[in-house]
Amino acid sequence: MPDKVIVISLDAMGGDHGPSVVVPAAVQRLEASGGRLKLILHGDRQAIETHLSGKRVPEGAVEIRHTDLVVAMDEKPAQALRRGKGSSLWNAIESVKSGQADAIVSAGNTGALMAISKLQLRMAVPDLERPAIVAAWPTVKGHTAVLDVGANVSSDAHQLIEFAIMGAAFHRAVLGSKNPSIGLLNVGSEDAKGHEEVREAHTLLRERDFGLNYFGFVEGTDIGKGTVDVIVTDGFTGNVALKTAEGTARFISGLMKDALMSSPLSRLGALLAAPALKKMRRRIDPSSINGGPLLGLNGIVVKSHGGADVRGFTNAIRVAEDLVSSGFANEIARNLERMSSIMSSPAAPVESRES
Amino acid sequence: MPDKVIVISLDAMGGDHGPSVVVPAAVQRLEASGGRLKLILHGDRQAIETHLSGKRVPEGAVEIRHTDLVVAMDEKPAQALRRGKGSSLWNAIESVKSGQADAIVSAGNTGALMAISKLQLRMAVPDLERPAIVAAWPTVKGHTAVLDVGANVSSDAHQLIEFAIMGAAFHRAVLGSKNPSIGLLNVGSEDAKGHEEVREAHTLLRERDFGLNYFGFVEGTDIGKGTVDVIVTDGFTGNVALKTAEGTARFISGLMKDALMSSPLSRLGALLAAPALKKMRRRIDPSSINGGPLLGLNGIVVKSHGGADVRGFTNAIRVAEDLVSSGFANEIARNLERMSSIMSSPAAPVESRES
Repeated sequence: MPDKVIVISLDAMGGDHGPSVVVPAAVQRLEASGGRLKLILHGDRQAIETHLSGKRVPEGAVEIRHTDLVVAMDEKPAQALRRGKGSSLWNAIESVKSGQADAIVSAGNTGALMAISKLQLRMAVPDLERPAIVAAWPTVKGHTAVLDVGANVSSDAHQLIEFAIMGAAFHRAVLGSKNPSIGLLNVGSEDAKGHEEVREAHTLLRERDFGLNYFGFVEGTDIGKGTVDVIVTDGFTGNVALKTAEGTARFISGLMKDALMSSPLSRLGALLAAPALKKMRRRIDPSSINGGPLLGLNGIVVKSHGGADVRGFTNAIRVAEDLVSSGFANEIARNLERMSSIMSSPAAPVESRES
Repeated sequence: MPDKVIVISLDAMGGDHGPSVVVPAAVQRLEASGGRLKLILHGDRQAIETHLSGKRVPEGAVEIRHTDLVVAMDEKPAQALRRGKGSSLWNAIESVKSGQADAIVSAGNTGALMAISKLQLRMAVPDLERPAIVAAWPTVKGHTAVLDVGANVSSDAHQLIEFAIMGAAFHRAVLGSKNPSIGLLNVGSEDAKGHEEVREAHTLLRERDFGLNYFGFVEGTDIGKGTVDVIVTDGFTGNVALKTAEGTARFISGLMKDALMSSPLSRLGALLAAPALKKMRRRIDPSSINGGPLLGLNGIVVKSHGGADVRGFTNAIRVAEDLVSSGFANEIARNLERMSSIMSSPAAPVESRES
């Protein structure tokens, strides 16, 4: 669909920087999109116009929908649900529900985004308690999609397979693999290792044809190696793994900086190596991979990191565009339907064989 | 007990390098210990004597117990149990059971070490399925003990508290904190987050007096920061976290190396900074923190990394010495007893309050 215009709602007030990041990012994406993109900016009209002034955007490509109300970054989800109606976040999500926008991007409060999205859009995958969050993890080979990294604290075998379906669609739409390989995170590669949930999901993924390119079990070390394109795990393990990796990366970078600053000679060395080191930092810079969808909803909701800069937020808008234009939602719907027909088929389900 | 001689059994054939690493490490520790250490080396007498020849060790400080049988690094635990009797690993563990040695150190097959230890020594903490493994994790501030990193795939609240007790004793004995602070690994710091098991353990640790310095929930990022001295988690999450951190560290070091080799100027910079970078690598070198006990057994069993070099294995022996001389086993026994009396006390247990 090369000529269809994509409409994306932005929560202009979300994130640590609000319109000072969202508006310039919006302008950048409009410049790059060649007239195929329209953006609806929700938030304080004056603040948005200030950041738009002097910028050239195509006629009709930006619409501002004013609201005074903002959901704070530290508001609890329950509070945001109670008093968030009419806020920039709320209105942006509502525009997806009403069909006025194809997707919404917000750098705002994750808990509020999740709660309001769930309330308004409803879950398309009813057995998930909450939308799943996918992280695009930098690896030796490119990027691996890891999910769930935070929302669903425990996940049974069915949910793990749903994550596999959604993660594969995400990798195809955004990270570019034609036939993404899928690994199930475990503590070893033998069939007998791990929780009952991962063992059951492993057996199902191996024996049934969900249309997925299933690789098998992977371990924590495989995340950085890029062994597979998609790594599936429950939200507890995924969240711990993501944060442990962040902490480790920060620790090692800190040690490296200390080491390079520790003597006059090493400081000179660091100076000479600076351009190369900068290039490396850019490769693992979170803003180069910013923007992940909340998965399992009726509608495309993309979460940007709260602290994202213009480059990061621009990337989050691009992720939303890719998700809309790639037929991502249809692929997921088709594969979930296939899954549910497989799981309810007369062929003995895997669990019952053991009984 | 300054004058008591500590007796430690070594599996001289274990690990990727066998006696070529174990024997020189033994000699180094004997030199450092000033006559307070005796080592029993189990394995091929001729191979051990070859590596001992020309080395000076105090009279009577080394005893060789010959055996031809070796448990291979890739043998399955069940197989090792079946045909491992009389092997260097088996005999070394048996000497602890019989009271001839105070501890055993092996760089051999982890699964076999765990299975044979459990069979011979039996669990002191009967509700653990397997001994727990503790990792000494390098952090900004020093080292944090993380457990369980691999053995018990799911853990209830009682087991998590047992890990806390054993981890605190380990930190005190080996890593030097007088009153180790303890964190429970979770996906957020609020009371309502996470699994039921961690929430229950959290409530118990806060409300009952187990003699522990309980900090509260910590997240994955806190591991590298050194927020607490001991981090408690189930064996599944701990194993994934450890391996993810290893993978991330390797990934970032690889990127750094590539960056430094990418141009003549950066290569020159790397050359100038080399001594400082080497010092940094040493700080996170696994051999500086090699050697972790299998926890929960009747007896001290220390696992060295299979690929450990002489420096690494020397450190594993030192860990065993610290565990023996510090009264580690008594501290654990005392605190487990205290725990069981608290948990069976008439004060309403935490779970029942919610019902």
